[in-house]
Amino acid sequence: MYQFGHYYLACYGLSPQACLTPFIIFLSMSSNNSSLIPLRHSAEHVLTQAMVNLYGPDSFYMAMGPATPEGFYFDFEPLNGLKISEDDFPALEAEMAKIVKSALPITREEISLDEAKKMFASNPYKMEWLNSIEGRGEVISIYKTGESFVDLCAGPHVATTGDIKAFKLLSIAGAYWHGDEKNKMLTRIYGTAFNSQEELEQYLLMLEEAKKRDHRKLGKDLNIYFYDDEIGQGLPLWLPNGGVVIEELEKLAKETEDKDGYLRVKTPHITKENLFIKSGHLPYYAESMYPPMEVDGEKYYLKPMNCPFHHKIFGHTPRSYRDLPLKLAEYGTCYRYEKSGELFGLMRVRSMQMNDAHIYCTEAQFEKTFMDVIKMYLYYFEVFGVEKYIMRFSTYSKDGLGKKYIDNEALWIKTENMVRQCLTNGKVNFIEVANEAAFYGPKIDVQIYSAIGKEFTLATNQVDFAVPSRFDLHYTNAEGQPETPLCIHRAPLSTHERMIGFLLEHFGGNFPLWLSPVQVSLIPITDAQHDYALKLKAQLEEKGIRVNVDLRPEKMQGKIRDAQLQKVPYMLIIGGREVENNQVSVRQRDGQDLGAMPVTTFIDTIGKQITSKSLSLIK
Amino acid sequence: MYQFGHYYLACYGLSPQACLTPFIIFLSMSSNNSSLIPLRHSAEHVLTQAMVNLYGPDSFYMAMGPATPEGFYFDFEPLNGLKISEDDFPALEAEMAKIVKSALPITREEISLDEAKKMFASNPYKMEWLNSIEGRGEVISIYKTGESFVDLCAGPHVATTGDIKAFKLLSIAGAYWHGDEKNKMLTRIYGTAFNSQEELEQYLLMLEEAKKRDHRKLGKDLNIYFYDDEIGQGLPLWLPNGGVVIEELEKLAKETEDKDGYLRVKTPHITKENLFIKSGHLPYYAESMYPPMEVDGEKYYLKPMNCPFHHKIFGHTPRSYRDLPLKLAEYGTCYRYEKSGELFGLMRVRSMQMNDAHIYCTEAQFEKTFMDVIKMYLYYFEVFGVEKYIMRFSTYSKDGLGKKYIDNEALWIKTENMVRQCLTNGKVNFIEVANEAAFYGPKIDVQIYSAIGKEFTLATNQVDFAVPSRFDLHYTNAEGQPETPLCIHRAPLSTHERMIGFLLEHFGGNFPLWLSPVQVSLIPITDAQHDYALKLKAQLEEKGIRVNVDLRPEKMQGKIRDAQLQKVPYMLIIGGREVENNQVSVRQRDGQDLGAMPVTTFIDTIGKQITSKSLSLIK
Repeated sequence: MYQFGHYYLACYGLSPQACLTPFIIFLSMSSNNSSLIPLRHSAEHVLTQAMVNLYGPDSFYMAMGPATPEGFYFDFEPLNGLKISEDDFPALEAEMAKIVKSALPITREEISLDEAKKMFASNPYKMEWLNSIEGRGEVISIYKTGESFVDLCAGPHVATTGDIKAFKLLSIAGAYWHGDEKNKMLTRIYGTAFNSQEELEQYLLMLEEAKKRDHRKLGKDLNIYFYDDEIGQGLPLWLPNGGVVIEELEKLAKETEDKDGYLRVKTPHITKENLFIKSGHLPYYAESMYPPMEVDGEKYYLKPMNCPFHHKIFGHTPRSYRDLPLKLAEYGTCYRYEKSGELFGLMRVRSMQMNDAHIYCTEAQFEKTFMDVIKMYLYYFEVFGVEKYIMRFSTYSKDGLGKKYIDNEALWIKTENMVRQCLTNGKVNFIEVANEAAFYGPKIDVQIYSAIGKEFTLATNQVDFAVPSRFDLHYTNAEGQPETPLCIHRAPLSTHERMIGFLLEHFGGNFPLWLSPVQVSLIPITDAQHDYALKLKAQLEEKGIRVNVDLRPEKMQGKIRDAQLQKVPYMLIIGGREVENNQVSVRQRDGQDLGAMPVTTFIDTIGKQITSKSLSLIK
Repeated sequence: MYQFGHYYLACYGLSPQACLTPFIIFLSMSSNNSSLIPLRHSAEHVLTQAMVNLYGPDSFYMAMGPATPEGFYFDFEPLNGLKISEDDFPALEAEMAKIVKSALPITREEISLDEAKKMFASNPYKMEWLNSIEGRGEVISIYKTGESFVDLCAGPHVATTGDIKAFKLLSIAGAYWHGDEKNKMLTRIYGTAFNSQEELEQYLLMLEEAKKRDHRKLGKDLNIYFYDDEIGQGLPLWLPNGGVVIEELEKLAKETEDKDGYLRVKTPHITKENLFIKSGHLPYYAESMYPPMEVDGEKYYLKPMNCPFHHKIFGHTPRSYRDLPLKLAEYGTCYRYEKSGELFGLMRVRSMQMNDAHIYCTEAQFEKTFMDVIKMYLYYFEVFGVEKYIMRFSTYSKDGLGKKYIDNEALWIKTENMVRQCLTNGKVNFIEVANEAAFYGPKIDVQIYSAIGKEFTLATNQVDFAVPSRFDLHYTNAEGQPETPLCIHRAPLSTHERMIGFLLEHFGGNFPLWLSPVQVSLIPITDAQHDYALKLKAQLEEKGIRVNVDLRPEKMQGKIRDAQLQKVPYMLIIGGREVENNQVSVRQRDGQDLGAMPVTTFIDTIGKQITSKSLSLIK
């Protein structure tokens, strides 16, 4: 069972439901600069205030406006014909700058539900939320900026608008209320804020580079995947180039997992309702699941997770302590219902092929087993050249026991101590975040940074001490007594969808040789070299190298350009002289010309690069 | 799109719907001994007559009784407390023998619907069918045996009961009317008949051996797969041992397909309704599909086939004749709704992982492309030691044009000629069957025989000249004009479910070394050899060999027996002497003792066996 961290810090307009939806999109704000949250949230208030100043209070309804890992955004419903475009940003930014310069104090006040309802009576979005919390006895706060501006908001904020040292409006877009296309389409302004102008500029530079590396653009240009309206939103179809990357990732996973004693299982994509009631998914997770199909009078669901299936496999056979740790792995495709407004490229999808495994172990085996999982993450980082990562260790909180968390404090303390010890002993780069654990145990969210410093949530690693007993899972210990195993959920290669999305951006489409859909492009200069090129193709394919041969009646330069656009690592130019000397003229996709070399030299060299999963080319 | 041949020849009681349901179960009667059909069908009438003689005409309702590839069966509803068990078979067989000895003539008569309704007024099963054909103007025939026995039946039959030279009743079971658990449970008697006593005895011998090799029993004993009530009928869960076999089969498929230029794609398991309307599945195939899920106001279906997804991928990119043949492969999991009464082990399931591919080619490329597919089948037969096979080439019929078949006779003739020429030129063992083609083109059903001669329907190979144009698929030909490709559907390794079911029975669980879940079992005689055994395990695993080490405090003989029960090809017995000499004592699962040999000799020998996919062990 995988959940992804919730980094929303939002005005009350953000519904509690939205908060529970797994949060997947890029994170450029990592856990270690969460100090930016109040700053960004305040910048969003300043934007709203600037809009009131410029367009008047009756020109829009404030809907919601959270700080995000990238900055902030503000959703509003324009009224009375208000139209805002990016052309209005300079004026808006100038007005915001005025408010910042005035260094207005931002102050918090707690009010009653009735007072709140009176104050925001004219705003249907705020009222929707206020009505939804009726009777829950929640503390309601408002934040004032100076004297004139007020918003219903949970905070926190910076002390004065003067603290907002550097900000920028970035873009404008439509966004459905609650991300649901059945709701009204609102207008969303994105912006960001930092503690210094320098940091802002660095971020904007990264953003510019990130645009070029957008996996949606690269995914299209490199023929990796596509969506089709007739098939459905969030359901990617993987083209042959994407198929190669998937195959290579699965090969890597299998090799790595085989070495670590994992066993591969295979389970259906659907199951009867009862399994997900037992697992606790249906009571808590139904909104993220596809609706049921009724077959033979029974409800069947698409699986949103593989766990209960693996638990069934564990439970199918009597287990001895000698069989543990038992590691059941499966690249299982899961289906989760995400609102169409929340779908995003490969990062937020409805079908996901997960590098899943569940490890059942004894308490005594926990530290080594858990550390082996962490080591596997670190190994993959090395393979992909991921130099910066953070593991967010999410723990329970006393207050949440029996509510958010299983009510067994001793077990929480023990398990968390085990995990903490692992991370410390293993010298892992981690931070600890209280009150963000999963329902059934502590978890570790793994954040990684792409080559240009963009942050991604990769996967989650969880300790589960509740579900095994719910599924009545046992092993016989050395004394012949039944005992409940611990279970570790892990997915270090995330899903194919998210991993390939990340890799596209991380490498800017320049996959390392071993992962490149086409590794070598053969470019005969004239028809006279076609036979030689085809012979060479066979020779390279014999060695397992993925080759394309370009027999089109195009000019050599055009063929080179096309291969470069497809980011093919090596182009072999074949003219009369190359045929004569049984050589190839080697060009790299980065434009470097390596000159002529014997065919066998080239094959040997790249063969080694492939085997070693080298991150760089010959030169 | 794969359909499987329909070999039913049934009394009218068999509903037209049942006739359309793909027929998958074992076939011991192959296409080349379909001459047994009249004989077996007559034997079934004799059984019914014997029951009337022994128990009286009011003791049961005849429901239906077809000849099958295995013999025949008779379904009836017992009345007035009739109870039949296998203990009654000797008496029934004696009565049947009397009828056979009397050599009663079996004669056909055609009657009107009204006459038939009068004649069978008291039988609700016959009446159900008679009512269902009301107004269709079908010819209705009855068959009489001698003077006293009559049944509503399409025939054909043998001339007299004296032609039934050898018959036997086999078993008794419950069977739902129309295979649907919502209907009444009837009683079914299975029997068989042959042209000679010798053939019958041979068959019974095969049956006895087949029982031992039943894949359901072996699948359980060898921990290959299981079903779980909480997950659902027909949805197998693959245990780690099954996972190994799946992985090895996929590796084989990928290696073989890579060599032949296939490209791997990956597509979702669900899609919007419209795709399957366009493909023609929903109008004709809805009963074999899972019901829809309603998402965002759209109906989504689980895919029963991969074809439309691959067509989408073909259509996504502009294609040139230079790109053809384009071969898109995917081990796609499909879901088909089979009535629960029709589910059978791994042979008839609801989820199936298909060795699927669709090949798009020009007409000029057809013969070579199609022949390459046939060669791939033959290669796999060699790999698995399948010595006997038949390809049933199913063609159109003039009468069915515009009804069962796409209305373009010239295209049928041309395509069938191409296929026929391929099969003849390739010296393939095939027979031709008129009027059994698919809707959109000719097909080849591949029947294979296991080591003990039991027949299985493996897969179907189809030529499709209709769907590509329905999906508006084009390529640009050498003249720059758009042209519609031909499409070949193929699945030579069938589905994992059916293939592994077949392989379990074919090998009687004794998988060849390369396919064995555990290849070597290490058996230390005492605790003193545990360290050596573990070292050896690492050494073997380093070479990619799948090893189990048995450290239980059991006697050596017990460990050997357990490994043999698990059909582990090699057991290495390790005592003090072996440790001293760095040797292993090798036992085969068939009981052969190969004595001691150096570890490296053993590793080299079996390494070669694995690489060559050898079908036999060392000795």
